[in-house]
Amino acid sequence: MLADTIVAIATPLGEASIGVIRISGPDAIAIGRRVFVPKKNKDWYIKDNYKLVYGHVVDPDTREVLDEVLLSVMRGPHSFTAEDVVEISCHGGIVPLRRVLQLVLNQGARLAEPGEFSKRAFINGRLDLAQAEAIIDIIRAKTDAGAKVAMSQLDGRLSSEIISLQTDILGLLAKIEAIIDFPEDDIEEATLDEIAAQCDIMLQKVNTLLDNADTGKIYREGLQTVIIGKPNVGKSSLLNALLKEQRAIVTDIPGTTRDIIEEFLNIQGVPLKIIDTAGLRETDDLVEKLGVARSRQLINQADLVLLVLDATTGITEDDLKIISLVKDKKTLVLINKIDIAANRINSDKIKRYLGDSFTLEISAKQEIGLDKLEQAILELVLAGKVTAADNVIISNTRHKQALVRAKQHLQEVQRGIKEFVPADLISIDLKSAWEILGEITGNNVTEDLIDRIFADFCIGK
Amino acid sequence: MLADTIVAIATPLGEASIGVIRISGPDAIAIGRRVFVPKKNKDWYIKDNYKLVYGHVVDPDTREVLDEVLLSVMRGPHSFTAEDVVEISCHGGIVPLRRVLQLVLNQGARLAEPGEFSKRAFINGRLDLAQAEAIIDIIRAKTDAGAKVAMSQLDGRLSSEIISLQTDILGLLAKIEAIIDFPEDDIEEATLDEIAAQCDIMLQKVNTLLDNADTGKIYREGLQTVIIGKPNVGKSSLLNALLKEQRAIVTDIPGTTRDIIEEFLNIQGVPLKIIDTAGLRETDDLVEKLGVARSRQLINQADLVLLVLDATTGITEDDLKIISLVKDKKTLVLINKIDIAANRINSDKIKRYLGDSFTLEISAKQEIGLDKLEQAILELVLAGKVTAADNVIISNTRHKQALVRAKQHLQEVQRGIKEFVPADLISIDLKSAWEILGEITGNNVTEDLIDRIFADFCIGK
Repeated sequence: MLADTIVAIATPLGEASIGVIRISGPDAIAIGRRVFVPKKNKDWYIKDNYKLVYGHVVDPDTREVLDEVLLSVMRGPHSFTAEDVVEISCHGGIVPLRRVLQLVLNQGARLAEPGEFSKRAFINGRLDLAQAEAIIDIIRAKTDAGAKVAMSQLDGRLSSEIISLQTDILGLLAKIEAIIDFPEDDIEEATLDEIAAQCDIMLQKVNTLLDNADTGKIYREGLQTVIIGKPNVGKSSLLNALLKEQRAIVTDIPGTTRDIIEEFLNIQGVPLKIIDTAGLRETDDLVEKLGVARSRQLINQADLVLLVLDATTGITEDDLKIISLVKDKKTLVLINKIDIAANRINSDKIKRYLGDSFTLEISAKQEIGLDKLEQAILELVLAGKVTAADNVIISNTRHKQALVRAKQHLQEVQRGIKEFVPADLISIDLKSAWEILGEITGNNVTEDLIDRIFADFCIGK
Repeated sequence: MLADTIVAIATPLGEASIGVIRISGPDAIAIGRRVFVPKKNKDWYIKDNYKLVYGHVVDPDTREVLDEVLLSVMRGPHSFTAEDVVEISCHGGIVPLRRVLQLVLNQGARLAEPGEFSKRAFINGRLDLAQAEAIIDIIRAKTDAGAKVAMSQLDGRLSSEIISLQTDILGLLAKIEAIIDFPEDDIEEATLDEIAAQCDIMLQKVNTLLDNADTGKIYREGLQTVIIGKPNVGKSSLLNALLKEQRAIVTDIPGTTRDIIEEFLNIQGVPLKIIDTAGLRETDDLVEKLGVARSRQLINQADLVLLVLDATTGITEDDLKIISLVKDKKTLVLINKIDIAANRINSDKIKRYLGDSFTLEISAKQEIGLDKLEQAILELVLAGKVTAADNVIISNTRHKQALVRAKQHLQEVQRGIKEFVPADLISIDLKSAWEILGEITGNNVTEDLIDRIFADFCIGK
């Protein structure tokens, strides 16, 4: 499979100065040589490395000049894929990129599958699996904090934590093997006590990682949020007020279109993903438009519900219907329109319906109370948890699930020791824990899992 | 103005493998040095050139690692802008690019204006004006043929044609000066005859260029086309049928969204730009929705009208109303639905209303007659004109207008010679022609014109 040479457009499609075609594989340089005519530096293909060469992409059959380009050559194993890589930096329009891509395909390269470059980097041992997964997280990061978590993972900090756990387990396995081979009662008991103690330490480490996993997931995927309330309660105004500042941030970058990230709010680094059904503007009558069943489903999927009530009307029948949908959900109650009327909603009444939900008085129109709302969201999300600082943070559900399973096996080890289970049974649980941790870094994964992980990547990565 | 260092994101924004930050100016390398920590190759900034360096972008204040990158260094004058250029190849997400951009801005670079990199390339003499303008045409090209015309212009083929004309004019000016300085009747007459003859040759060259200018404009900007007809005549079906094949071409590139080019059809290299008012789908009742005045305006802006009639109804009152709008316009008459009824529309009748318009029988639903439609469009657009082959093609209206003005002055020279106008007056027209041609290549332009031309570019270019 790695015998072939793959190619893809590696930059987003659109109109811009630069667009890059990436070629990787054993024929990358040979193909580069066939389609590229350098201005000077005629023998770049012989031994140049990490070199930029100026010239033109020319169709070898028709001699037509397709584009003026810079060609980069990076020889394996010191390249992104650990294979020979040639990148052609073209003019960044759709037509010139498509033409150069087609020419490279005609010369025998194959169109890369999504994530195939990263997959090769993993298969060729340049990145472990957690690092490869971090790449796509960096690209898709919605906030600085999200990018930070992913960069730390790409840097290998999560991986070394996992590898250190695996090394500890191997040490314990060696001790157990000794017991199995030379069973002597007093040595056995002392050793088993030691193993139990070390399991304790490992479980603490695993628990620390798991403690932050939910936060990590939010940094990675955003906090799924639904704004809900009866018609005309001010949901759109609230969304607009929250978005307002965001837009300013977004449009700092010229050319950013709102389409790309409009569903994400950045609450001090926490990406708030407003669940977008038929466009944000339509949330105004979510329940009416979608019906109770669909709304309930959306609410169930959400990490957070922002329930908007109207200070001027008090709690109405409509509100009660909606409240019944959000029971048992992490909910912030927002009493809106406090600028035009005294609050007619009794907080005891809310407590009766929604327990100890956090309640805030706001005016979306006048932008009153929004700071407190942001603080409340942060409290709710991060309460007592580390922020994306210097700790290693698990952000990927796959990693979390592996840790949970590894933890169960380590707990099984402790239980076994307490209950005088034979040493060879204990060693099976240790081995399982070791293997499951290997799924995170990829030193123990099936081809099928690899395929599934990389299929989620974008083309050209 | 050129003393400062500019920076911009040079790739389209979106999620992809690679995104490039381009820095140009006297501090490019110094700034690169402050934000970039190389893995090896610690002294890249001292004298490396056309080199790729692997490393990380690190905030010098917080020591935070922002991204894993490849840095390219290209020293002036052998760079795109002829200044020192540093390009940082980051992970292609919005957040990592924004973070690196912000860091570079913090280090004293200024956000580049649209087209400012190309403008610097022009001001620093690396490209002439026509070449610089070709860059944006390549990026925005809608078809291969359009890209081809622009590539040839970037290559300098148009420029050398213009420069050759200017050189000829300088030769004539020298001869005229000789007459003015040493007026002798017989020499004067012979010389003026010679000048008239050479003006003839130049005018032929100018006319050849102008002959293809309309075609060139279509390759560059697309053929503005309106599909018009009464409700339910099959306009949407026609558009869908024409788009169908196109979609296949477009979606050849994974990741291409229809949004970007959906308004363009590629008819054998000719970009057909369907005038998009409120979305293509709404053309179905253009006249009803927009009113007669707005429709007439759209039709007036169009290069081509596709007037759809219904074979099953014959020509109705509604049709006549629409026909009255398209009179005097380049129009193709399409008699649709010939699959479900014999054609009840008499071509003589059409001739009566629309003169010698080209008429075709089609079925949009059954895709009958579409080949002929494409051929007819090509005939109409290119009839007797060269295609985007090896001739130099004027595609830019600015260039065309300059040529038209230069032509007028050359004709004035000929008239002056015929009418025995004093030699110094003739020389004024020659000088004017020379100056106007200089507007094309940019050796005679005002700062204001330069600003206007480059403002139309995209950021990062």
